[in-house]
Amino acid sequence: MSAMAYEVSIDAPYSEVVPRVIEALQAEGFGVLTRIDVHDAFKEKLGVDFRNYSILGACNPSLAHRALSNRPDAGLMLPCNVIVEENDEGTLVRIVDPAAMMQAGGLAGDPVLQEVGAEAETRLKRVAAALNR
Amino acid sequence: MSAMAYEVSIDAPYSEVVPRVIEALQAEGFGVLTRIDVHDAFKEKLGVDFRNYSILGACNPSLAHRALSNRPDAGLMLPCNVIVEENDEGTLVRIVDPAAMMQAGGLAGDPVLQEVGAEAETRLKRVAAALNR
Repeated sequence: MSAMAYEVSIDAPYSEVVPRVIEALQAEGFGVLTRIDVHDAFKEKLGVDFRNYSILGACNPSLAHRALSNRPDAGLMLPCNVIVEENDEGTLVRIVDPAAMMQAGGLAGDPVLQEVGAEAETRLKRVAAALNR
Repeated sequence: MSAMAYEVSIDAPYSEVVPRVIEALQAEGFGVLTRIDVHDAFKEKLGVDFRNYSILGACNPSLAHRALSNRPDAGLMLPCNVIVEENDEGTLVRIVDPAAMMQAGGLAGDPVLQEVGAEAETRLKRVAAALNR
């Protein structure tokens, strides 16, 4: 368990879990703005095989707007990464902890960002709980 | 100056700087795999005006492959964010410091990641220097 993320192990194949993750994020107001299919990128650029592994970039527009209006450099921490990775047991989902990221990034002292980070954290914890069901 | 990024102020319009940044990243082996035009997203989702502001997700495939082969959770720190922002003086570019990010993310103790982070740092510093010319 990384200190920077909530992890959820799901006993279902990767190809089923990816859309479930996207849907669960949407239910909490996070659009998936970017997606890197790491296995495809490695195959294409390096010619190597890698297990199914995607990095989704999730963003809640109104929280992001509050953060960036207050601290333009908060964009260094955006979007919130959600990783979906195939493993022997099924699929592992890692959802970044935005409050921990801000703390780590030295942005935790800002009261607006603290509020935005706490709100994002609450919502992403609900995403993790929904996936755990 | 954020502790997490190298900043370069460029006396040129945003629309010219974005392709220069992409080119400078490519020269150091970083492809831009994702791009969020934040001003467009805010306009579309929230109906608000925001200055030109893009978050580019840069990734060097062989460094990323070494990192992820060693520590799957290193994907929480990928891709490397590069922010291009319009301001009164022209354009501000912020390039994330991957070594600082890994330190912050509690990944600095891992020798492979330390090496990968140092290599990424060296390359991204050269990107910043190239943009500063």
